[in-house]
Amino acid sequence: MANNGLLIVISGPSGTGKGTICKALSEDKDLWISVSATTREPRAGEIDGVNYYFLSRQEFLEKIENDDFFEYAEVYGNYYGTPKWKALEAIYSGKDVLLEIDIQGALKVKQQYPEGVFIFILPPSMEELKKRITNRGTETEESLMRRFKSAYHEMNYISKYNYAVVNDTVENAVDKIKAILSAEKCRVDRLKEKILDSEEVEIHE
Amino acid sequence: MANNGLLIVISGPSGTGKGTICKALSEDKDLWISVSATTREPRAGEIDGVNYYFLSRQEFLEKIENDDFFEYAEVYGNYYGTPKWKALEAIYSGKDVLLEIDIQGALKVKQQYPEGVFIFILPPSMEELKKRITNRGTETEESLMRRFKSAYHEMNYISKYNYAVVNDTVENAVDKIKAILSAEKCRVDRLKEKILDSEEVEIHE
Repeated sequence: MANNGLLIVISGPSGTGKGTICKALSEDKDLWISVSATTREPRAGEIDGVNYYFLSRQEFLEKIENDDFFEYAEVYGNYYGTPKWKALEAIYSGKDVLLEIDIQGALKVKQQYPEGVFIFILPPSMEELKKRITNRGTETEESLMRRFKSAYHEMNYISKYNYAVVNDTVENAVDKIKAILSAEKCRVDRLKEKILDSEEVEIHE
Repeated sequence: MANNGLLIVISGPSGTGKGTICKALSEDKDLWISVSATTREPRAGEIDGVNYYFLSRQEFLEKIENDDFFEYAEVYGNYYGTPKWKALEAIYSGKDVLLEIDIQGALKVKQQYPEGVFIFILPPSMEELKKRITNRGTETEESLMRRFKSAYHEMNYISKYNYAVVNDTVENAVDKIKAILSAEKCRVDRLKEKILDSEEVEIHE
């Protein structure tokens, strides 16, 4: 019996650098990276299954009907969603799945797959987060403040997560996430069936 | 405010190699190794606080009275115990404490300090455990069989532990335990107060 893989959900306020961390983690060939689905047209160079799963509107609606998404939204007439069926396919085949998603999305994933490993990425400090959001440039003072307040508000959701990882450097954060995966695979809750089922012991009396 | 250290309890049936693993882990200078207390006389070369804490019978009895031991036993007229006060002192000063203990002892520690990290060391297989117990030599067939059956019975206690680590090689087992410690330090349950208390954020409106 193959063991199920883990669903690792990397999430956190904007500006904490979760995208960079996931990019670094995705170099690990044993991780299956979750790709979003969309009904919008592929742009030049975009590859189905790499950038997005490109679905027709009809296909997307059927998948909504089948409860095939962890979450989805319609934006400017196009649907975007996080495919549950793809993640579960990989998990049941023993692969660990990495899913980068915002906080609202992560909470929806958790409702449907509470056995996932939910990791909240933290900035080294709120001052540093402010700096990072500001350094993205181009935005007005007002919109920066809105973003920052929203990030600050989102910090409250940390209690819904299993782990919090401070993104002081990408290397440190990646090491910690790898340690979390390694530890989760040793959790008795996850191992119990495997151990107790797999042992054939002969006691010669 | 310094964070409390972790209490890491390494335990498992005899013959799984937990002693070797703890010896390897104890090379990490950041870990404080729990040392037993005893009323027996020090032997030549034994150092107080290194091999044992050597206590007078009077001191030991007072400490029992004060609930200062996780567990203790009287063996051939001498007391032996696992000092709770020493472990807590180290933990409250921010040090991680490593405690190697048999299964009955570990269960007593868990009752008194459930926030510890309880790690069960597993042999690669029950066949391998049998081989290891047998290779210790010198014992009769009957006593070997009793040891093996007791180890087999002790496997049932795995469900009381947080983690199970297979001792296929000492290096692998040590790496996994280090990953567990690193992960445990990221657990939101443990971090919450630290994060939510330590941030002073100014929002300029």
